[in-house]
Amino acid sequence: DFPWSELDDRAVDTVRLLAMDAVEKVGNGHPGTAMSLAPVAYTLYQRVLRHDPSDSAWLGRDRFVLSAGHSSLTQYIQLFLAGYNVTLDDIKGLRTWGSKTPGHPEYGHTDGIEVTTGPLGTGLASAIGMAFATRRVRGLLDPDAAPGQSVFDHHVYVIASDGDLQEGVGAEASSLAGTQELGNVIVLWDDNNISIEDDTNIAFTEDTVARYEAYGWHTQVVDFTAGPEYREDPKAIFDALQAAKAVTDRPSFIAVRTIIGWPAPNKQNTGAAHGSALGADEVATTKRILGADPEKSFDVDPEVLDHTRLAVERGEKLHAEWEERFAAWKEANPQRAALLERLNKRELPAGWEQALPEFEPSEKGIATRAASGKILNAIAPELPELWGGSADLAGSNNTTVTSEPSFLPEKRSSEMFPGHPYGRTLHFGVREFAGGAIANGIALNGLTRPYAATFLIFSDYQRAAVRLAALQQIPVTFVWTHDSIGLGEDGPTHQPVEHLSALRAIPGLDVVRPADANETAVAWKTILERSHRPAGIALTRQGIPVFDRSVVASADGVARGAYVLADAEGGEPDVLIMASGSEVQLAMSAREQLQAEGIRTRVVSFPSHEWFDEQDTAYQQSVLPPDVRARVSVEAGVAMSWHRFLGDAGRAVSLEHFGASADYKTLFQEFGFTPEAVVAAAKESLAAAR
Amino acid sequence: DFPWSELDDRAVDTVRLLAMDAVEKVGNGHPGTAMSLAPVAYTLYQRVLRHDPSDSAWLGRDRFVLSAGHSSLTQYIQLFLAGYNVTLDDIKGLRTWGSKTPGHPEYGHTDGIEVTTGPLGTGLASAIGMAFATRRVRGLLDPDAAPGQSVFDHHVYVIASDGDLQEGVGAEASSLAGTQELGNVIVLWDDNNISIEDDTNIAFTEDTVARYEAYGWHTQVVDFTAGPEYREDPKAIFDALQAAKAVTDRPSFIAVRTIIGWPAPNKQNTGAAHGSALGADEVATTKRILGADPEKSFDVDPEVLDHTRLAVERGEKLHAEWEERFAAWKEANPQRAALLERLNKRELPAGWEQALPEFEPSEKGIATRAASGKILNAIAPELPELWGGSADLAGSNNTTVTSEPSFLPEKRSSEMFPGHPYGRTLHFGVREFAGGAIANGIALNGLTRPYAATFLIFSDYQRAAVRLAALQQIPVTFVWTHDSIGLGEDGPTHQPVEHLSALRAIPGLDVVRPADANETAVAWKTILERSHRPAGIALTRQGIPVFDRSVVASADGVARGAYVLADAEGGEPDVLIMASGSEVQLAMSAREQLQAEGIRTRVVSFPSHEWFDEQDTAYQQSVLPPDVRARVSVEAGVAMSWHRFLGDAGRAVSLEHFGASADYKTLFQEFGFTPEAVVAAAKESLAAAR
Repeated sequence: DFPWSELDDRAVDTVRLLAMDAVEKVGNGHPGTAMSLAPVAYTLYQRVLRHDPSDSAWLGRDRFVLSAGHSSLTQYIQLFLAGYNVTLDDIKGLRTWGSKTPGHPEYGHTDGIEVTTGPLGTGLASAIGMAFATRRVRGLLDPDAAPGQSVFDHHVYVIASDGDLQEGVGAEASSLAGTQELGNVIVLWDDNNISIEDDTNIAFTEDTVARYEAYGWHTQVVDFTAGPEYREDPKAIFDALQAAKAVTDRPSFIAVRTIIGWPAPNKQNTGAAHGSALGADEVATTKRILGADPEKSFDVDPEVLDHTRLAVERGEKLHAEWEERFAAWKEANPQRAALLERLNKRELPAGWEQALPEFEPSEKGIATRAASGKILNAIAPELPELWGGSADLAGSNNTTVTSEPSFLPEKRSSEMFPGHPYGRTLHFGVREFAGGAIANGIALNGLTRPYAATFLIFSDYQRAAVRLAALQQIPVTFVWTHDSIGLGEDGPTHQPVEHLSALRAIPGLDVVRPADANETAVAWKTILERSHRPAGIALTRQGIPVFDRSVVASADGVARGAYVLADAEGGEPDVLIMASGSEVQLAMSAREQLQAEGIRTRVVSFPSHEWFDEQDTAYQQSVLPPDVRARVSVEAGVAMSWHRFLGDAGRAVSLEHFGASADYKTLFQEFGFTPEAVVAAAKESLAAAR
Repeated sequence: DFPWSELDDRAVDTVRLLAMDAVEKVGNGHPGTAMSLAPVAYTLYQRVLRHDPSDSAWLGRDRFVLSAGHSSLTQYIQLFLAGYNVTLDDIKGLRTWGSKTPGHPEYGHTDGIEVTTGPLGTGLASAIGMAFATRRVRGLLDPDAAPGQSVFDHHVYVIASDGDLQEGVGAEASSLAGTQELGNVIVLWDDNNISIEDDTNIAFTEDTVARYEAYGWHTQVVDFTAGPEYREDPKAIFDALQAAKAVTDRPSFIAVRTIIGWPAPNKQNTGAAHGSALGADEVATTKRILGADPEKSFDVDPEVLDHTRLAVERGEKLHAEWEERFAAWKEANPQRAALLERLNKRELPAGWEQALPEFEPSEKGIATRAASGKILNAIAPELPELWGGSADLAGSNNTTVTSEPSFLPEKRSSEMFPGHPYGRTLHFGVREFAGGAIANGIALNGLTRPYAATFLIFSDYQRAAVRLAALQQIPVTFVWTHDSIGLGEDGPTHQPVEHLSALRAIPGLDVVRPADANETAVAWKTILERSHRPAGIALTRQGIPVFDRSVVASADGVARGAYVLADAEGGEPDVLIMASGSEVQLAMSAREQLQAEGIRTRVVSFPSHEWFDEQDTAYQQSVLPPDVRARVSVEAGVAMSWHRFLGDAGRAVSLEHFGASADYKTLFQEFGFTPEAVVAAAKESLAAAR
């Protein structure tokens, strides 16, 4: 049953008119795809999506991800027509300062936008993450409901461009979606043979549908160009979407063959239609073709708008029906309902922190990655919302929650990792970027708290996902182990050197590098308490001492980013030694030597620049007194991020070149990470400060 | 014809013994794949590769890329057996300080290693880049030779692991290899169903062979597990490789089904065999199975070694035959021979710099990306070795050389981009990471100088490739346009903020951000003169003034990284303003205002921190006099990398948060990038310095 009236045709044409006008007004943007995808997006928003324009946060809604973020108008105009809080004036304000309609869709900025897209491939990958989350949430809240019958079941629809399918991250995530048999993901590929460099024949000639079949997806083709004339067929789109929904054991891929910029007479089927205004003449001609008045701009027939705004009523009805079922679920599941309420507020359960382990002081110590693994497993029963996994480094990243099966269809179980569809530990395979983007999608889907793990060096692979987590301010935790040359023999391809500084450069991201096992516990505690932004935690491969907190300060100082671990003895400090992670022990040894020489030495453990920056000036100055200009930083990486704390007289014990393959003790020695080197730097700084 | 004797069997077993012993000795490493791939690698090195162990730089050699870099022993042991400059002692020194056998193969460090691998997927992608280069070099030097008959023709063989095929960069490059019909690429996939997290059923279930068919590759399967018992079949490998070589219009993919760790009785077919020593007991048992003395380590039968060292003789013979053909080619092609000689020395032709354009002073000016495009096209005829392209942003990156066709099979031509197999402009599609890794492979193949372009923001996608270029110190140029919020309307997903600092953090990479069109010319000149390391050039989208060099200093100062563009008037400077790129004009305007107020102000144009660091102290202090403590940096990004030049009293005019979607003039205004803000910062710094 697919009712389609002349009003619908006019509505689709209205989309094209608005797309042309909005780009023309600002003078730049992407009109072509918004025009040719109009019937597809309209069918989705008006006939397929379960959504309530009056309440874009409705828990039972389907998710729509415009992975082709450059075609933001595709989504903005549908939001406007369907009655979200996006007005015609907002459409007119496209790509201008302060508007609700920025160049690319931004999560948290515009009503109805589920995810920030634009960096190609990431939307698709995060949509797949949303589907991961749907299944895990169902497992937490409504595990026994029949398939498709839970109030938490929903679909994730994606519009993907050629670029989304060329980018590796899309390929990584799509392969995983096949493994995970995500039946609720439906991807519409805008197969228009045109990208910025015009005809994709120069760079994209694979059989993409066959590739998705190879991933184990259900595939379909809808070809608007199949007939003697180009014919847009919303019913074919609708039917394909219904068929895709009927396939519940595999994700669905629908290739929609379109002509970009349709029906602009001269710019259609060109790269020029992709990313530039069409120009006044072409817009006027196209308007004539569409039977519209070329003299009018942003002209929306009230009758058309009334028609499309029926989506509000339909949405409210769907929502109301769902509320009844939701109320029944709540009544039948009071404990789970309480859990949902907590998760929805992103609150942690009272007293959860009691589960955090304390680690006994030990000279031999423990690697912070191992401590992190113990912490995760200790708090796992308290925080069912915390889940995640590794990019094929589970044992090295210590990120497996051993009390529950892995998140896998049962047939994907292995001897080492029993699987369950509602399981807890994720396996990204050797796909760090997809791991990050999927974690973003999980966080965006709401309710749960994901983490994604790999070696710190491979944060490079997933850097665009880390940035998107920071840009969206979503609570994703990146677990980065093997955080320095301390990983040893794997050598320079695996040894992060520049990464801590390079990650600290990303606005809105917390980078945390704890100095021992107990700092690791406080780091996790603080990260979990901060649900308003993402964090990365950098952990050692090698064992490092667990400090005796009866001698040094409490690890609670971690929450403030930097704290006085061991103060100068004998008066105000002559010199400050700031260090992070495995290098704090070097600072402590150096302090002993310096104090023995009568140099009053304060050691500041400095796990997080960002958290320290948030403290008030009084605290900051109590830790780093401005008049103590003799300062040393100690971190086995480039010093770049430390210079602002070092000042003119400061000295960095740092690594300004790549590492090497050898055992870590040799590397620390050869590369000058010794207490003696720290002592020498302190004396140099003292001389400079005089 | 595939002769195979009992000595060959013993040689293959010797590989396994050495792999076990080497890992056991150091206590860590990856024995499993080296064991099970022994017959494959041996067949390659002893029967298939055209190589000369006495001369690993032989121009006519085939290339071998171990994309599965963690299995470095697979290559080290073959290099040793074949008679490269890798000794048994080197094998014993695996993964130890100063050895020739680091954890992962390192280009420039070990004889016979063509590329640094380990970061998965990148080896495969760079191997595909080598195949690009083979065709381009042939086009430059021997275009008319019949297929396979040129002295410059060679094959590129790759051993890829599961991880290489899971990583998106491998997928990106493989799709492109299909488009480019690279008949000389042959990939052997070690299909062993095991990765670090054990059984790959948990994360890698796609039909990989079908995926490669979808890319347009020729595919084959060799299954050692097909029979009732596991049977290693070198002849089947050899036959498959011959069949792959016979297919010259498509790259070849050979899935080799193996059992990792074969024939270790307990550790075979486990993740434990992948990345850990087998343990003394398992090694001893395996030695017994192989008929070797479990008491002996690193035991190589001289008879076996004599047999494998026949590779030296064979190689010399192949080389000598090739030299004859090479001599004939030289005689027939004296001009091309002269070009080859120049390219092989990585020298630039005398007087080439005469072709560099000079740009007239202009207030309206020109975007540095546009200047860069003019420069590239002006020098293109002088430097045929300079080639490259964009990740679907050719028109925006201004990286197309318009006087020659694109590098494409003719049937892949488009209206906009006529193609020729020997063409010049590359089209990476929307695949930044593959673009970078392919450029690395082109540089590693020798002779030519590649560049890879995208927006600066998407350096995030390709960051691991950029790092590998820096680690290998190869002459790749990354062209990064749209280098700040100055790109305007596309908004925060497209506006680099942290990228300049984050890239400067990478050791061994030159980051260059010219301030006008003439600085762009000197930047390109300097980059091309520095063939010993990679560079990234950051260019504006927006037009910026071309300074009048009769008034300000010559742009030649760019080569020194920083120079006094306009000095203080009236005596020694009170304040230094350091700026890069589009922000230098702000510094110049601020200088006018400050001078008008009687504040003596020097403007330092600072295009490259790295080049400045290379200057002697006298020069550095002449530009930044240590006693002038009032300093301002101006750059539309995070200030992190500037603090070391700013010192205690310095002030940064910087952007410590994400951008927004609006026209760039509004953004600069709203985010405080104005002459007034620079003046205010200068006054603040002057006050602090007092």
